[in-house]
Amino acid sequence: MVSVRGGRGGPLQSPALPADTGAGLWPQVFFGGPWQCASPLQGELCRDFVEALKAVVGGSHVSTATAVREQHGRDESVHRCQPPDAVVWPQNVEQVSRVAALCYSQGVPIIPFGTGTGLEGGVCAVQGGVCINLTQMDQILELNLEDFSVVVEPGVTRKALNTHLRDSGLWFPVDPGADASLCGMAATAASGTNAVRYGTMRDNVLNLEVVLPDGRLLHTAGPGRHFRKSAAGYNLTGLFVGSEGTLGLITATTLRLHPAPEATVAATCSFPSVQAAVDSTVHILQAAVPVARIEFLDDVMMDACNRYSKLNCSVAPTLFLEFHGSQQALEEQLQRTEEIVQQNGASGFSWAKEAEERSQLWAARHNAWYAALALRPGCKGYSTDVCVPISRLPEILVQTKEDLNASGLTGSIVGHVGDGNFHCILVVNPDDAEELGRVKAFAEQLGRRALALHGTCTGEHGIGLGKRQLLQEEVGAVGVETMRQLKAVLDPRGLMNPGKVL
Amino acid sequence: MVSVRGGRGGPLQSPALPADTGAGLWPQVFFGGPWQCASPLQGELCRDFVEALKAVVGGSHVSTATAVREQHGRDESVHRCQPPDAVVWPQNVEQVSRVAALCYSQGVPIIPFGTGTGLEGGVCAVQGGVCINLTQMDQILELNLEDFSVVVEPGVTRKALNTHLRDSGLWFPVDPGADASLCGMAATAASGTNAVRYGTMRDNVLNLEVVLPDGRLLHTAGPGRHFRKSAAGYNLTGLFVGSEGTLGLITATTLRLHPAPEATVAATCSFPSVQAAVDSTVHILQAAVPVARIEFLDDVMMDACNRYSKLNCSVAPTLFLEFHGSQQALEEQLQRTEEIVQQNGASGFSWAKEAEERSQLWAARHNAWYAALALRPGCKGYSTDVCVPISRLPEILVQTKEDLNASGLTGSIVGHVGDGNFHCILVVNPDDAEELGRVKAFAEQLGRRALALHGTCTGEHGIGLGKRQLLQEEVGAVGVETMRQLKAVLDPRGLMNPGKVL
Repeated sequence: MVSVRGGRGGPLQSPALPADTGAGLWPQVFFGGPWQCASPLQGELCRDFVEALKAVVGGSHVSTATAVREQHGRDESVHRCQPPDAVVWPQNVEQVSRVAALCYSQGVPIIPFGTGTGLEGGVCAVQGGVCINLTQMDQILELNLEDFSVVVEPGVTRKALNTHLRDSGLWFPVDPGADASLCGMAATAASGTNAVRYGTMRDNVLNLEVVLPDGRLLHTAGPGRHFRKSAAGYNLTGLFVGSEGTLGLITATTLRLHPAPEATVAATCSFPSVQAAVDSTVHILQAAVPVARIEFLDDVMMDACNRYSKLNCSVAPTLFLEFHGSQQALEEQLQRTEEIVQQNGASGFSWAKEAEERSQLWAARHNAWYAALALRPGCKGYSTDVCVPISRLPEILVQTKEDLNASGLTGSIVGHVGDGNFHCILVVNPDDAEELGRVKAFAEQLGRRALALHGTCTGEHGIGLGKRQLLQEEVGAVGVETMRQLKAVLDPRGLMNPGKVL
Repeated sequence: MVSVRGGRGGPLQSPALPADTGAGLWPQVFFGGPWQCASPLQGELCRDFVEALKAVVGGSHVSTATAVREQHGRDESVHRCQPPDAVVWPQNVEQVSRVAALCYSQGVPIIPFGTGTGLEGGVCAVQGGVCINLTQMDQILELNLEDFSVVVEPGVTRKALNTHLRDSGLWFPVDPGADASLCGMAATAASGTNAVRYGTMRDNVLNLEVVLPDGRLLHTAGPGRHFRKSAAGYNLTGLFVGSEGTLGLITATTLRLHPAPEATVAATCSFPSVQAAVDSTVHILQAAVPVARIEFLDDVMMDACNRYSKLNCSVAPTLFLEFHGSQQALEEQLQRTEEIVQQNGASGFSWAKEAEERSQLWAARHNAWYAALALRPGCKGYSTDVCVPISRLPEILVQTKEDLNASGLTGSIVGHVGDGNFHCILVVNPDDAEELGRVKAFAEQLGRRALALHGTCTGEHGIGLGKRQLLQEEVGAVGVETMRQLKAVLDPRGLMNPGKVL
């Protein structure tokens, strides 16, 4: 993932931050200034600190070069670049542990880094510190075919794992779109299009190897364990999944694998209204059709996809579906689904059994982000991420479209409708402060609307930098206080990925 | 659930414990003495405390009667009775909060109590204190059919919920055998026969209302929220599921519901060896047959079931299976399963489609505990609960049978083989100290054997009183230290169900 690296870095100095690019959508979320390389790491001591890092991981695995630091100060979101003071590439878990212990002893912030494909600014080094890029630890440590489990290091992405699993009869279904690190996906509780059938990372992580801030090594379910269920003590695995690097560094993840589907069929159909599309989804789930993916795209999104991916679909609320199973089971699933969507007024239920047709269809869905961006060349995208009880989806989708019109923003909607989770992809001119303000206001209004409907401000992207206020409104004072207590006891010096989540 | 109650109790005095019945299998697990009603609750102050409890919940909802206290000092396990000093029945969450705050302010232990159907001594009041029986809070607070969710109070059992759901098209599948309180099942991370398809309580709890030890009210996913997924902050729901009443009192649980199966078929088949039965299970799972239950019974268990439930099955390693789906899907599932088990040498694959036949079959499985006890009338049962990676099941089952023979104990094996979880039901004379010692040695040896095979000492019964040493061996020093830190920060005075888990 990272091509620029090396040990050229000079002293770890009071950071020469790049000029603010103006791309920071939510400037107010960056409290305080960047980490000032304050005592005890001024001048001579800073040089000593970098030397100490090099002594742990080797000189060629530490960098303080500006380009490298900038590359590690942002993810794929609109949050402005906040570079760390140094980047290290440990080669094994012992080195991670020693780097963490070193930072901990000196009060230096620690930011874990995987593929950098997050969407909430989770890697921004808002207080500077050391970015620990874990991607050079990229081994599949253990594959247990009979037990449906695998152990991977942080450098293993979901696509790399599935390539490795090819012909094994198993696969790992969680698919957030990006080819993210599986450990990063654990850290952010990722999910995506397959979650309606296979669950999210919360359901598919069996064990984690975690380096705690002080360098101690924790195996959340015990070392080497990969059972399918347990009632042994507090669920530490569940606590670290979704902790966004604020409690420790995930250095290995044990995942639950699933049987590869014998056959796959994709289908699409368009509806006269949002309500009809959502009603169909509820009825499909109630009929226990084990749909593997069920994705909603609004008319604007379909128009964008038609243009970008050369499709010829109706410009109307649309469902993209995928079914997994035996040939015989698929036929029944298709038949039941067709009946249901037709009862709800769908037109043009068409399905694709062949791999090529299917990939064309899903490529269009996966390229929705780029299709949306292409609506306004030169602009940037921002994705909202609310999730509500499925019964409230029609109402919030209709309101959201009204809000979009009222705001004058360019936005399209795509969603994991089987989970009640949808994204509004806003395309914005990053140089237009007034428009940025409208995007921010729209996103916050949408978040609060979801909360009012018993939903969450984030189904899968996480809190990161921009949703900390909404988190407080979501879980309430006692919830936030409880989370703060957990953070304080596991990271007493507040050094793990500071400024995120809480 | 509780028929004996009332406000007759006299002063809360230095507890008149019942004579030790000799039924305590693991006397060494009871560290310290019972709570001595020590300062500040001696004499006059004790009377004041009971009066204060009565002021909160009403005089008729507090009892210090010996019979009542003894009834609340044990569960269905062999752990000896350890009665609390008083029992209260709050009528609503505000009363629970006020009772907790009262206990907290006075340093009095708090023990939550549901149906008392636990198997690891989780309700034993090892330090005395106040038992909070939550069963009079028994409302189904909210049912969201379109959202597949329901909110229940602690007095609602799984059977009561499913009765309520009849004709709704939905059901709650987690089935630990006992008709337990759903909030208690959340507290103990219960699972059972359906977990292979529908998951455990960990997978099916969406939100919890928890009274913290100091009386504050926490909604783990935020008040009123019932979305299907979220990435908002630390997973507090996951932390409280399986915490066995040591972090707070669960006063409401939001559960995920599932579509009721359109049709159901049960089947059995017997095998020439344990290995063949387990191999069949792996192959069925690999073939992605969505089996709803797949239970293993060894030859001893089958013999006991034949006698107790008037069956006429082969006395051999046997699988009991259940399939859920449409008629057409069921036929395919049955056909695939039959092929697989026959390839593994099964004989007598027979299936039952009619409700009556099915219930007869599953009644036999559900009565396995009593069938085992009937092998030695007048004796008591103790159930082990290890869970291992499924590939290690044949090995541990064979070793366990050898150990059983070597120990001279009466034991039969039954297990949720799709999850790698099995129980060895030992039937023991509680008056025979030497035999009790052999049971204890056998259970510990089995626990350590599971740990050596990357398994857990408890798949679903929990740690409770008897497995605290094994938990330490399972999660290691850093794991236990992390759990202790979590306990210390959420229950700083150590008053929530003391002596359990850690």
